[in-house]
Amino acid sequence: MTKVTIIGLGLIGGSLGLALKRFGGGDWRITGYSRRPETARKALEIGAVDVAEPGLGRAASETDMVVLAAPIGVTRDLLGEIAPHLAPGCVVTDTCSTKGRVLEWAGSLLPPGVEFVGGHPMAGKETWGLDVAEANLFEGATYCIVPPPGATSFALGLVTKLAKAVRARPLVVSAAAHDHMVAGISHLPLVLSAALVAVTQQDPKWPDMSLLAAGGYRDTTRLASGNPDMGRDICLTNREAVLSWIDRFATELSQFRKDIDLADGKGIEARLTSARKAREAWSRQRSKSGG
Amino acid sequence: MTKVTIIGLGLIGGSLGLALKRFGGGDWRITGYSRRPETARKALEIGAVDVAEPGLGRAASETDMVVLAAPIGVTRDLLGEIAPHLAPGCVVTDTCSTKGRVLEWAGSLLPPGVEFVGGHPMAGKETWGLDVAEANLFEGATYCIVPPPGATSFALGLVTKLAKAVRARPLVVSAAAHDHMVAGISHLPLVLSAALVAVTQQDPKWPDMSLLAAGGYRDTTRLASGNPDMGRDICLTNREAVLSWIDRFATELSQFRKDIDLADGKGIEARLTSARKAREAWSRQRSKSGG
Repeated sequence: MTKVTIIGLGLIGGSLGLALKRFGGGDWRITGYSRRPETARKALEIGAVDVAEPGLGRAASETDMVVLAAPIGVTRDLLGEIAPHLAPGCVVTDTCSTKGRVLEWAGSLLPPGVEFVGGHPMAGKETWGLDVAEANLFEGATYCIVPPPGATSFALGLVTKLAKAVRARPLVVSAAAHDHMVAGISHLPLVLSAALVAVTQQDPKWPDMSLLAAGGYRDTTRLASGNPDMGRDICLTNREAVLSWIDRFATELSQFRKDIDLADGKGIEARLTSARKAREAWSRQRSKSGG
Repeated sequence: MTKVTIIGLGLIGGSLGLALKRFGGGDWRITGYSRRPETARKALEIGAVDVAEPGLGRAASETDMVVLAAPIGVTRDLLGEIAPHLAPGCVVTDTCSTKGRVLEWAGSLLPPGVEFVGGHPMAGKETWGLDVAEANLFEGATYCIVPPPGATSFALGLVTKLAKAVRARPLVVSAAAHDHMVAGISHLPLVLSAALVAVTQQDPKWPDMSLLAAGGYRDTTRLASGNPDMGRDICLTNREAVLSWIDRFATELSQFRKDIDLADGKGIEARLTSARKAREAWSRQRSKSGG
């Protein structure tokens, strides 16, 4: 039996609890903590946790594992607050979207004898909160596991066990590789999506345009409906990687623009054909792996 | 009873036929023409047309209305080829994604006594062909109706009747307004989508990144899976509007980049909050109107 404490019971924390209860084979004893007592009560009611603990210090003590499933904006403070309460041998992980900063904070704030191994399940929704949590949120999703240099196989193993228990696919990567990769497939798309909404909805013709906008616009802009606080923290904590991807994107866009400006039909077609092939290959791989 | 000939029996032409048969109240007698005889036969089999006419000239003659539902790349030639066969009083429309060029071609190629009123149903899929045609493709979608200056209310009325018969919502706009608007909500997103695929999949880390890419990447890049020929023709026939939107987008993106570079949390949050509000307002309006 592994004692795990989930701190933060929103979409991710709540879904982790539900998934551990449903798929964890009874191996997990789950304590839940939320800043808001009514959320912890709700988590208990829906069976996402076994115990709702109103005190953060008590929630962090006498447990084998702590999962910080809170916004990255409060994660540094949480690390500092739980640090004095953690038992020796406890493993702490998180679910934040960026990893470099979190690993730095954990390295400086957690006491000796407590290990930190970062985590990032690649699953989400554009809505958030416990109400939209679900047990199968992580099914088939990649779960990035981000150990600091020198992590023990014990700590790595425990976070891997958690990822597998919620039916995700663990992938061990360095913090730098993680932050570079998610900036490309997640943070850059978020910025593009928000910029697309901004530029179209500032147009004087938007009232009519909005009637024409259909499925393509809906999908391309979906990420713009996400949590703005979370998006801001992503941009701030993964600043360098996001900037570098924006620059690479801007270069690609200006090359595409040149082909259009020159009315270079062959060039445009080659770009679109190559993008289509690459995207279809990704899509096939994804549906094969059940992701 | 209105005699209508659909030229081109792919996703759009086939769906128009199916929708007219299902929802048209028996008021439409549909002749179908496809360059490929097996497609016309298939359209007859699935009940998308009443008659499959193998000759383009014959298909265009003795009909009240011709709908050109072919790629824009062949639409100019088709206008020239059907011109000598059209009966006086016949109304010709199309379903192309851009309207300026098509109206020019129709104006110079169609004989006096034949009227052209452009059309563009705002519905589609990233797949194409008769196999994916469906009767309810246009349900609740906006159907742009683009008359040239001086169009008669008779011709405008007939194309409007067609749009309503397939359960779409007619919206009359000028060619210039149409091309400007669709460049913003459809052609710019296509270019962004393809550029995003290109820049991510050229990254040396793509094999691992592809495992991390999830729903956000899927949606933001969906348009990149569309027909490259169609995308090329869109960029070529709506070149000026697409270029102008790319420039506006690039400006917006560089302003967003500046906020990130300055680690201006308030600025980033304001951009994301504003995009979220605008996108949610659009989404609510869309679900209210059943689009």
